[in-house]
Amino acid sequence: MIDLRSDTVTKPTQEMRAAMAAAEVGDDVYGEDPTVTALEERVAALLGKEAALFTPTGSMANVLAVGLLVAPGQEVLCEARAHIARAELGAHGAITGLTMRTWRDRRGQIDLAAIDEMLSPDLGPFFVRTAALSVENTHNFAGGAVLPLEDLRALRSYADEHAVAVHMDGARVWNAHVATGTPLEEYGAVADVVSVCLSKGLGAPVGSLLAGPADAIAEARVRRKRLGGGMRQVGVLAAAGLHALDHHLERLADDHAHARLLAEAVGVDPATVDTNIVAVDSDDALGMVARAKEHGVLIGAVGSKTVRLVTHLGVSRDDAETAAKVLASL
Amino acid sequence: MIDLRSDTVTKPTQEMRAAMAAAEVGDDVYGEDPTVTALEERVAALLGKEAALFTPTGSMANVLAVGLLVAPGQEVLCEARAHIARAELGAHGAITGLTMRTWRDRRGQIDLAAIDEMLSPDLGPFFVRTAALSVENTHNFAGGAVLPLEDLRALRSYADEHAVAVHMDGARVWNAHVATGTPLEEYGAVADVVSVCLSKGLGAPVGSLLAGPADAIAEARVRRKRLGGGMRQVGVLAAAGLHALDHHLERLADDHAHARLLAEAVGVDPATVDTNIVAVDSDDALGMVARAKEHGVLIGAVGSKTVRLVTHLGVSRDDAETAAKVLASL
Amino acid sequence: MIDLRSDTVTKPTQEMRAAMAAAEVGDDVYGEDPTVTALEERVAALLGKEAALFTPTGSMANVLAVGLLVAPGQEVLCEARAHIARAELGAHGAITGLTMRTWRDRRGQIDLAAIDEMLSPDLGPFFVRTAALSVENTHNFAGGAVLPLEDLRALRSYADEHAVAVHMDGARVWNAHVATGTPLEEYGAVADVVSVCLSKGLGAPVGSLLAGPADAIAEARVRRKRLGGGMRQVGVLAAAGLHALDHHLERLADDHAHARLLAEAVGVDPATVDTNIVAVDSDDALGMVARAKEHGVLIGAVGSKTVRLVTHLGVSRDDAETAAKVLASL
Amino acid sequence: MIDLRSDTVTKPTQEMRAAMAAAEVGDDVYGEDPTVTALEERVAALLGKEAALFTPTGSMANVLAVGLLVAPGQEVLCEARAHIARAELGAHGAITGLTMRTWRDRRGQIDLAAIDEMLSPDLGPFFVRTAALSVENTHNFAGGAVLPLEDLRALRSYADEHAVAVHMDGARVWNAHVATGTPLEEYGAVADVVSVCLSKGLGAPVGSLLAGPADAIAEARVRRKRLGGGMRQVGVLAAAGLHALDHHLERLADDHAHARLLAEAVGVDPATVDTNIVAVDSDDALGMVARAKEHGVLIGAVGSKTVRLVTHLGVSRDDAETAAKVLASL
Repeated sequence: MIDLRSDTVTKPTQEMRAAMAAAEVGDDVYGEDPTVTALEERVAALLGKEAALFTPTGSMANVLAVGLLVAPGQEVLCEARAHIARAELGAHGAITGLTMRTWRDRRGQIDLAAIDEMLSPDLGPFFVRTAALSVENTHNFAGGAVLPLEDLRALRSYADEHAVAVHMDGARVWNAHVATGTPLEEYGAVADVVSVCLSKGLGAPVGSLLAGPADAIAEARVRRKRLGGGMRQVGVLAAAGLHALDHHLERLADDHAHARLLAEAVGVDPATVDTNIVAVDSDDALGMVARAKEHGVLIGAVGSKTVRLVTHLGVSRDDAETAAKVLASL
Repeated sequence: MIDLRSDTVTKPTQEMRAAMAAAEVGDDVYGEDPTVTALEERVAALLGKEAALFTPTGSMANVLAVGLLVAPGQEVLCEARAHIARAELGAHGAITGLTMRTWRDRRGQIDLAAIDEMLSPDLGPFFVRTAALSVENTHNFAGGAVLPLEDLRALRSYADEHAVAVHMDGARVWNAHVATGTPLEEYGAVADVVSVCLSKGLGAPVGSLLAGPADAIAEARVRRKRLGGGMRQVGVLAAAGLHALDHHLERLADDHAHARLLAEAVGVDPATVDTNIVAVDSDDALGMVARAKEHGVLIGAVGSKTVRLVTHLGVSRDDAETAAKVLASL
Repeated sequence: MIDLRSDTVTKPTQEMRAAMAAAEVGDDVYGEDPTVTALEERVAALLGKEAALFTPTGSMANVLAVGLLVAPGQEVLCEARAHIARAELGAHGAITGLTMRTWRDRRGQIDLAAIDEMLSPDLGPFFVRTAALSVENTHNFAGGAVLPLEDLRALRSYADEHAVAVHMDGARVWNAHVATGTPLEEYGAVADVVSVCLSKGLGAPVGSLLAGPADAIAEARVRRKRLGGGMRQVGVLAAAGLHALDHHLERLADDHAHARLLAEAVGVDPATVDTNIVAVDSDDALGMVARAKEHGVLIGAVGSKTVRLVTHLGVSRDDAETAAKVLASL
Repeated sequence: MIDLRSDTVTKPTQEMRAAMAAAEVGDDVYGEDPTVTALEERVAALLGKEAALFTPTGSMANVLAVGLLVAPGQEVLCEARAHIARAELGAHGAITGLTMRTWRDRRGQIDLAAIDEMLSPDLGPFFVRTAALSVENTHNFAGGAVLPLEDLRALRSYADEHAVAVHMDGARVWNAHVATGTPLEEYGAVADVVSVCLSKGLGAPVGSLLAGPADAIAEARVRRKRLGGGMRQVGVLAAAGLHALDHHLERLADDHAHARLLAEAVGVDPATVDTNIVAVDSDDALGMVARAKEHGVLIGAVGSKTVRLVTHLGVSRDDAETAAKVLASL
């Protein structure tokens, strides 16, 4: 089976497993796991932030991130198909007690005019206070679209002008970095806090991080415990992350090439495929999923009218070519 | 001073005060206040619903309404400037733990295409579940705009087809009814639950109601107590509501006429003024508010670029004409 | 029927109704209702606090009070049968997101040793933080028991020493004041915030207040709006409260005498009846309630083994004597 | 350094690391990780439950467990020093929105009389509903005390009689099992849901499980995702748990013997030490911690007057004897 459902399905390589087995560990709730600390410091440095925090999932990193910026009863603005809006089971309302308003953009891009219409950072005591803007780079449900750096910088300026904060859901910011050559630090500079994920394109089995100012990350450490994310000798997982940063970052370019190859096969303009995700319109998404499976290719439906193809560490050039043939034939 | 800030500023008339002073009362937490019960039954009947519940405010009625339809972690879709999104201080997230996605429409209208893009009533266990759609009729921050009955009916059909519920924030549904002649029951028929307000155009000092199915209203009665809305001999307020329904409903047509008169004075096309609210674009909303006040007219700013004029029970024809002159001169 | 179920069942007198009908009012959400403002200032002064806020119910006043002192994820300690623990439907957890630990005392008294065992104001980042202690004076479900001033002062000292706050649920602090002669200001001095109720012994139809420091009350005003408690021309209710403070405060002594008379009739030592509530142990509480009703006396069961008798404005000396005979005969 | 601060500090053995490195894995969010599934099935079987769910921490398992049994606005009763009350940062209120009442027992035991005084499973719509009882076995902050099986069975009967549910926080139920010989299944039989921890005495680096009825566990799986606990190739951690169950369960008897040895050294009656935790009263807990550290022994203070000694996989017989000498000398 060639598995194109998600880049979360990657399995650790032998080298990664060896790194995990050899990891020096300690009780990270007490701050004593040197491998976790090393990973946190490395990711913070990559993104130009003071500190970072390891979390079991990207969802937890995002819940912590937005919760640091937006108090209960305040709001965050984001694109309507953002992961925080669609795919975190309403955690931001259910857990943090904040609320959300959304703009819609087919490519998941920033719409400053829409934001400006909604923004209410200070309309007096009886209007909801907009406390943060959240962007997703790359944007998962918009087909892995990259947010251009100039747009991010314009957003940052706008946010500063109106004294609201910015969160970047950078679960796949690695892909944006490799696709555009933009240094990770440049992405880090446009947001107050950034979440990144190790278990997608980078191929680690488990783990995400939240990076930001030292005091915010210290507060996030306490809140992580409340959410049930304070793990103990978790250096065994952090070691996988360190290995992935050493060995699996640059190879994301291969995933991007494979995605364009798949796009061509299914009639999607490869120029619209920024990274490792191809969103395909289909009148019969579920049927397409079933037929592809019969031919040895696993793909995913997002709703009834969209199929999603995702390339990753576990999909070789040969796999991509084979899958392309299968999908073209359907 | 002529007060055009809001239709919430109305003071009870002498007749209304007399009705309040004469009200038969009991302990409504025990269900023993006959005046409250009479009002609840009357409003339920007007809207064609099985039952209704008196609440201290429209905000509480809306929080209860949406909370009945949408569980913590689920979502409601609404227009971005809906009262529930903007003007209830994030209560739906902070208290109920639900989340929200929004479409934007200048006139506060229903955008079925946008809704259809966002709706996810059943995308599996890891996507937020859309449980309800909420509409506001008339739409306060869209200048008192009426939602056409055919649009509401289309929404109802769409919601039925996708098994999601509908809430109508009908704080000013009285105005929609008087402006269009649509029976209140027709409005009631398109929504599972409807909130209405007595302390806006109808001129009661305090009070709103939530109408819907008997079992939902019974549950709302318990939740109202949790929110701190279970008042005792509140028939003194309900009596004002009954009086208002008898004497202040049809006269809303006067408010609408006054609003069109004001619109003309400030250069807004009266054809766009459906009811008793005029939204005026202004480069200097706060300055306009200040200058009007100097001339004896109180108006309100909603943000820095919009001024809102609202007519009501306390604004006579003469008042409206005087205010029109003042505003035209600014 | 003689109604001894609760002191919440009182109906407004003719004089009170006249005061309500004559009340000067305004939009209290805008801070423009002079009668509400007068009541808030008067209650603040009585309790020696900087400011006070009118709320629709005592439950809302308590939810706001504890919520001001205890953040989500922190805890309050209280007696196990406190109104905030038993009779507010879990609002403090459900709405505010705080948690609770309890000590148990048959008479609802303060148990400093128990508090000291539980208190954890500062055990580091991974233990729940005790942020406040809450006491109820008089204690409803402990039979209207008064908390002695010296115990309250000892609690205040203890709280200061450990840097935790104190809330007093003073729904019936009026009864404690009249029963003991302790000035209300003395009670106010031992707590950071105090809630009081107008619709119990004082006989107003609706209304409670929360008193405390000016900045806390300003914040409570915003939160009251979020909870749906921001009413408009609510001076009509505040007028009842002002009237009650003028005319119904000292007469609580009558209620206390009536309660002792009832206690004697049902075999409860009158010396244990501090105020207007008699808690009677009964093997068959529900049966006793039913039999009393057949004889024209309404009483309430709290659980299956306790009956509660409550005297109030609507129970005259004659009523009390009649009820005593009926209850003695059962 | 001999580390007696907690049994959470254990580091994986070489054999455990090898098992982790060799683990077959898959995407557990899709239910495709065979090692996780094997562990879940094994733990469910051990406890006599239909299903189990892997979680990153015991805190998350407890939050899910209690949240399955108790809705927002309902309450759980537990002992005042229970882990769920003290050491989960108020998560049950902050995240689930439930509330708590507590009884106090020095040895963390079940006090049915106290429970019976507080229980209100059905006092009508305006009283908080007691939905569950929670017990902790062994009880961490009561010095690792075992709850006798007959007490647990009495609790179960009582709960059944009153139609409330039971949660067992069994983070250290392994120790109770080894100390008493009671089969794990007997413990499982007295509770609706049971949480267990792999990263304490069992010595796995990370991981807990929640066991219970299949439908409840299915719901917990969704809620785990909302909390940010839905990890991907987490079989690498589950493998450690399986290894621990094979190799580290019976050896807990050694930890218990070491704890008694330490107890004797510090003047605590060994007969009161049920398992691997020794709670020592001390006038100067922080000073004792500091002095022990100078002599190469790490111990923990719980508050200012209690020191806690915990034995585990990382403390050999020699270590225990050395530590006993050091502690006896202080």
